[in-house]
Parts: sequence; C-alpha cells; structure tokens
Amino acid sequence: MANYKMAESNSRVIPLEDKIFGISQRAKQMIQAEGANKVVNATIGSLLDDDGKLVILSSVVDVLKNLTPVDYADYAPIAGTPDFIQTVKKAAFGNYVPKAYTEAVATPGGTGAIRNTIQNYSKRGDQVLTSDWYWSPYSTIAQEIERSITTYTLFDEEGQFNISSFDSRVQELLQKQDGLVIIINTPAHNPTGYTMTLEDWDKIIASVKSAAKSGNKKITLLVDVAYLDFAGDPEEYRKFYPKLENLPDNILVVIAYSMSKGFTMYGMRSGAMICMTNDKEIADEFKVVCSFSCRGTWSNCTRASMAVLSNIYKDQELLDKVDAERETHCRMLVKRGKTFQKSAQDAGLKIVPFDSGFFVTVPCENAEEVGLELQKSGIFTVPIGKGIRVSVASISEERCKKLPAKILEAIKTINPNYK
Amino acid sequence: MANYKMAESNSRVIPLEDKIFGISQRAKQMIQAEGANKVVNATIGSLLDDDGKLVILSSVVDVLKNLTPVDYADYAPIAGTPDFIQTVKKAAFGNYVPKAYTEAVATPGGTGAIRNTIQNYSKRGDQVLTSDWYWSPYSTIAQEIERSITTYTLFDEEGQFNISSFDSRVQELLQKQDGLVIIINTPAHNPTGYTMTLEDWDKIIASVKSAAKSGNKKITLLVDVAYLDFAGDPEEYRKFYPKLENLPDNILVVIAYSMSKGFTMYGMRSGAMICMTNDKEIADEFKVVCSFSCRGTWSNCTRASMAVLSNIYKDQELLDKVDAERETHCRMLVKRGKTFQKSAQDAGLKIVPFDSGFFVTVPCENAEEVGLELQKSGIFTVPIGKGIRVSVASISEERCKKLPAKILEAIKTINPNYK
Repeated sequence: MANYKMAESNSRVIPLEDKIFGISQRAKQMIQAEGANKVVNATIGSLLDDDGKLVILSSVVDVLKNLTPVDYADYAPIAGTPDFIQTVKKAAFGNYVPKAYTEAVATPGGTGAIRNTIQNYSKRGDQVLTSDWYWSPYSTIAQEIERSITTYTLFDEEGQFNISSFDSRVQELLQKQDGLVIIINTPAHNPTGYTMTLEDWDKIIASVKSAAKSGNKKITLLVDVAYLDFAGDPEEYRKFYPKLENLPDNILVVIAYSMSKGFTMYGMRSGAMICMTNDKEIADEFKVVCSFSCRGTWSNCTRASMAVLSNIYKDQELLDKVDAERETHCRMLVKRGKTFQKSAQDAGLKIVPFDSGFFVTVPCENAEEVGLELQKSGIFTVPIGKGIRVSVASISEERCKKLPAKILEAIKTINPNYK
Repeated sequence: MANYKMAESNSRVIPLEDKIFGISQRAKQMIQAEGANKVVNATIGSLLDDDGKLVILSSVVDVLKNLTPVDYADYAPIAGTPDFIQTVKKAAFGNYVPKAYTEAVATPGGTGAIRNTIQNYSKRGDQVLTSDWYWSPYSTIAQEIERSITTYTLFDEEGQFNISSFDSRVQELLQKQDGLVIIINTPAHNPTGYTMTLEDWDKIIASVKSAAKSGNKKITLLVDVAYLDFAGDPEEYRKFYPKLENLPDNILVVIAYSMSKGFTMYGMRSGAMICMTNDKEIADEFKVVCSFSCRGTWSNCTRASMAVLSNIYKDQELLDKVDAERETHCRMLVKRGKTFQKSAQDAGLKIVPFDSGFFVTVPCENAEEVGLELQKSGIFTVPIGKGIRVSVASISEERCKKLPAKILEAIKTINPNYK
C-alpha cells in the first residue's frame, strides 16, 4: 500500500502507471525512432486497418456530424433518453426478443455498466468472480469501490470450459457471502478470444441455479458483451440469450453493452446496463438503484451518442448501411484471428482456446521476460500473468501469419524447456 | 432504508424518483395541456432564452461538428488528452497563472470531479462539509461511496458569510476525522446565487490554516466553479484564485471545472479536476490516484469535447468569438437575476443573499406546500428544505419581474404569519 502524503488509498493498490499504456508508449517511441515497418504494436484494444489507422464506421460519423445542436448540447435524463433506452435493447438483443422484464440504464461505455452492477449487487468487501484469464480493469473497478476480484479456472486440461472449477468457486463464495456477482465476458472474450458455447451456458445456468436453489442467496450474472458485434455473425453470436430466460428471481442477469466497438464510438463513452428478470419489481428496483448510482457518479451520459444510436435504428436503410460497413471490418478481423490461430498451429505454438475477437492469448512461463524479449525485435504485446496477449485487432493479417513463429522463438529463448 | 429484493442499499437512501425531474415533468404536462404561456417552469438548471429554448453557443457547435473522425471515435487517454489537460487549466484559470503545482484530470462534468475528490481525499464513513444551502446531488455523490454531507450555516443573521459557523464545524469535524473535504460552490452558488467575496475567502483560508496548523490533519478545499463563466466579468470572478496559493502542504485545493455551462456542452459530459499545491509530490499523487479512479469508474472521458476545448484555445479569433457569444448570454442572465432581486425588494419578498448565476433562493417555512401552492398558478420551482429555488436561467426577464409578488402571495397563503 502506497504511503500517500494527502490521498487516501482506501484499500486500493494503485500502480504508478497503467501497464498497457506504458508498453504502448514504448512502441510509439520505437516507431518514431525506427519507422512503422520495424514495429508490430499488438497492444492496442481498438480495431486498426492494415495501415495501422483506426477503423471508423463512416456511416456512424455521418450521423454524429449531423445531429441537432440540442442533441450535442442538452443534458440527457439520468438513465438515458427514452429513445435510447428502447433502442439500446434492440442493439444488444438484435432479433431476439427477451421473454423477461428488461430495463436499461445508460452508462459511459461497458465500464460504467460493470461498475454500477458491482456497486448495486454486491457489498463492500465482497469478492466478485470471473475467469482466471480476465481483462485487468475488472480488478480496478472492483477495488475502487472496496470489492475484489477472485477467479475460477476457465479451461480444463483438455481446453474445455472448466465447469467444475466454476461450480466449486460459486459454491465456496456463497458460503461466505450473501450474494455473488459473476462476470462472464463473452462472446470473443478479452483476452483469450474464447466464446462460451451453448453447452457451456447450459452448464453455467445449471450451476448457478443449483447454487441459488435454497432461495436465501442472490446471484448476479453480469454478461460483458463488449465484443458482441465483432465476433462474427450477429444472429449466431446472440443465440445464448434465451439461456438467460426463466431463471429464479434470485438470479439476476445484467448485460453490459457498449457502443465503443460495435459502432466504433470508443471515445463517445456510450453503453448501457440492461437487466433480465422474471420479476417486475426486481427490474424496477434495478432502474431506481442504477439511476441513483449514475446521479452520484457521473450524472448523465453523452446525449449525442444516444441520439446517434436512436437515429440509426429509426432508419432501416441507414441501419443496413452501418451493419454492412461493420460486417466488412468484422470479416477482416475474424480472418486475422483465424490466420494467427492456423499459423500458431503450424508453428507448434500453443494458444489459449480461441474463437474470435480482438485478442489472442499465448500461454507461457515468465511472460514479462518473454514480452521484453519480443520488444527487442520490435514486437509489442501485453504480458498478463500466465501468458501474453496479442491484439490481432491492431495488426495486419500478414503480421498475424508471421507473428506466431517469432513468439515461439522468444518463448524458447526465455524458457529453454518449453514443451 | 428500502427493502430491496435483489439490490444492496449499501448505506444509501435511494429515492424512488428524482425530485426535480418529477416537478419538471409536471410542468411539461401542464404546458402540453394548457399552453406554454400559462406555465412558468423555473425548475430547469440550464440557460434558456426568453422563448424557453436552450441557449447554445453556435460557435462551439460549429467546432464540434467539424472535428476529425478520429476525435469522435478514438479513446482519449484515461486522464485526458495532453492538449486538453493544458487547455482546461487555461479555461479554468483565465489570465491568472497559479503560483502552485497544478495537475488536471479529465472528468465527466463537474460531478465526476466532485466524486473523485471525495473518493480520494476522504475515507468511508467520513463527513464532507458544505453550506446548509447546497446542491442536493452532493449528498447523492457522497452517499454513493459511503460518505455523507454535513453542513455549516452559510449566512449569519445580517446575511453575511457565517465564518464562525464554518470555523466551528471545521474544528469539530477534524476532532473526529483525520481529514476533511470541504465543498465551496462559488461564484454564483447553486442554489442561492451567492459569491464568496475576497474577504470571505480571507476568512476561509485563515480558518482552514488554523485548523491544519498542527500538521497531522489533512484538509481538501474543493472549489466547485460550475457557474464561473456565467457569473459576470470573467476576470473579476477569477480574482479569488490567488487566495488559494501558498497554503501549507496539508491543505490541498481542487478546482472542479465543468464545460457544461460555460461552453453550453451540458450533454457532452466534459470537465476536469485541477489541483493546486505547493508540493510537487502531492500534485503527482493527485494525478495517479485520480486516474485510477477514472479507470475504475468510467474509464476515459469524451474525446470530442476535449478536442473542442483544445481547438478553441488554439485559435484566438475563435476563442474571441466564443467569449463574445457567451458574454451576450451572460448579460441576459445577470439582468434576469438583478431584475428578480430588485422586484423582490420592491414587493417585500426576502431572498437569500444573491449575487448572480442560474438560481435565486427564497427562504420560507413549509417550502413543499408553498411549491404546490405556486403550481396552482402554473409556477414550478424546486422546494429545497428551508426555501424554494427559482431558476432565473430558465425564465424571461419579464417573468423575473412578475414572479416575486406571486411567490410572496403563495408564501402568505401557506404561512399567514409570514414576516
């Protein structure tokens, strides 16, 4: 715990610098010094084209540039504009119509939705469960409000979803706590690119139902769908939703939806938390408590992004245009991932079970050292404990093809006994 | 405390509906039913023109509409873009150059700055001090992170700043707590319109210096300048800043700056927290801990609004245009306030000491009933405990002139023994 002169640490362990930011800075410095063709910056969590430029849906920018002055200037209501609240459900659910009470509250990106869920469905000191491979800001979010992250093992030895680890951690935690928030980041999980299969979902649902059956414990399933629209076919990747219906009242589902990736509006800070429950009162209280959290944290959210989403969904032609533009970029991304996967297989480089999305993870010992070794050849990745995360979102297909062999080489240099 | 089915109250007292929103909704319904000329909606916290339309600085909207696609789409760094961090200090301080270490962190409006200050400079369970007339979301913000608001009496019997109440509350609280966050909303305080005079500031500084002199207590002076650019002459209303220089290291100053009012960008959620301290290490730790709070709460802030501010300050001609446009509207607002004040005096209606800004407050007993009585004549105000808040920002000068007599009438109907 740092010894601050004026600030209070308040149970948080605060690093001096954001790790990813630091590595990314070094990559930029090397690009300036030696040229872009000497550097592979696979640290970035945004989709870039093959020339390293941010992919931006021009159809979305057109809408944003042509809003009314009031849509730029005026406050939105705390929970979001009525139009947005309706529309964001369509954006999140697609053609699926939930057989459940759903309420939505606007949040600044997915981060705000995760923050508000932990805040309202756990207590100070509680542990929040997620998989051992996880997006590190989950821990920052939990710590900031005096909770912490604990993990289950995502994969078993056969590379299958490890339901027994999930199940035993859920039961163990519910012996200590009155409630449990479980974060499941799917499809196209950050950092592994894994997508929960429908069978995985059956197992998850059976496990939480069993853990909740006494009726005196509360479980909140927080499904972080940040990468939903860059996983592949939109219908296919929404097929898990019906699994979340008809749960007992003491299991609440919260969808953390973000416009950041799907509408390439990262910087406009727009998202929503959407609940699914069979109990209308639980949906109503969701709206009330989450609105209070908004009011007491960031007040209202960016009205302009809400107007963008609402306007797009009011105009079928425009929606088709946005979908088509996204599909092109999504295909490029999926191809990069598959190329990396295939090339890793050919080279004999193990990767963590991967389906699609922005990232691939390579498991290895001494990940920090492997990361530094790769930097010697101008390759920048993010070491994350038991492996290194490679952003296929930010490098070309050609580089996706070449990278596995180089990573294998670096791993073998650091770990001579690899495999 | 509500008995929730799934949510945790976590020490918060959560109302079912936002009070101001509820009154405002009723005003809108009456406008629809009976026409706009029958209704005076003095509840709104945004500047409206005489026709009830939102005042929007067109020069700012022009900049916003012409940003690059990357400025709309890309993430900003967690603490804000380097350009914004530099520029927002200029916007907050004007021609004043602080003789202090200053660091800035971008936040979603002033709310985010207030939230992050309380979070990082107090502990769970602490009381945060502000005046008895205060903007009610301060309490929401404090409660959301398990702190609470306590108050000193803003005015003495002569209507002067009540330094003795301030001083005794500061001392009392520091006997119980290791540190104290004090929120001072000036100039053009919400809800009273009062501005701390330079003499008031001298008294405040003497009081906190005396309370901090043992060296083992920490005081954070959070100056909420949300209405800074709609108070009157920009230079004049920035004259208090030098009072905040050269304080001992255990008194930290944080300026909560917002683009919402000054740039009529309410809905773009842009602001900053800026520290002033004589100790570089304290400024550095401010940056680190507040960035962590951002990362763990809303991640980064709206890049487009940062670009707007940066672009405006890079172009003197444009800046002059924005300033000139704002000045026109500011004059209109100041005139409305002065008209209300004069008319109240003429009618024999007491108001809380007023200088300028969006709101005037009328002290009275049974404020809720007075509010309802006024609604019968189509006048909508916000009852706030010991009085009613009237938004002169949202009604015409003509209405500002007529309103005091009507308010007096309603007060006398409810409180026959008034004065």
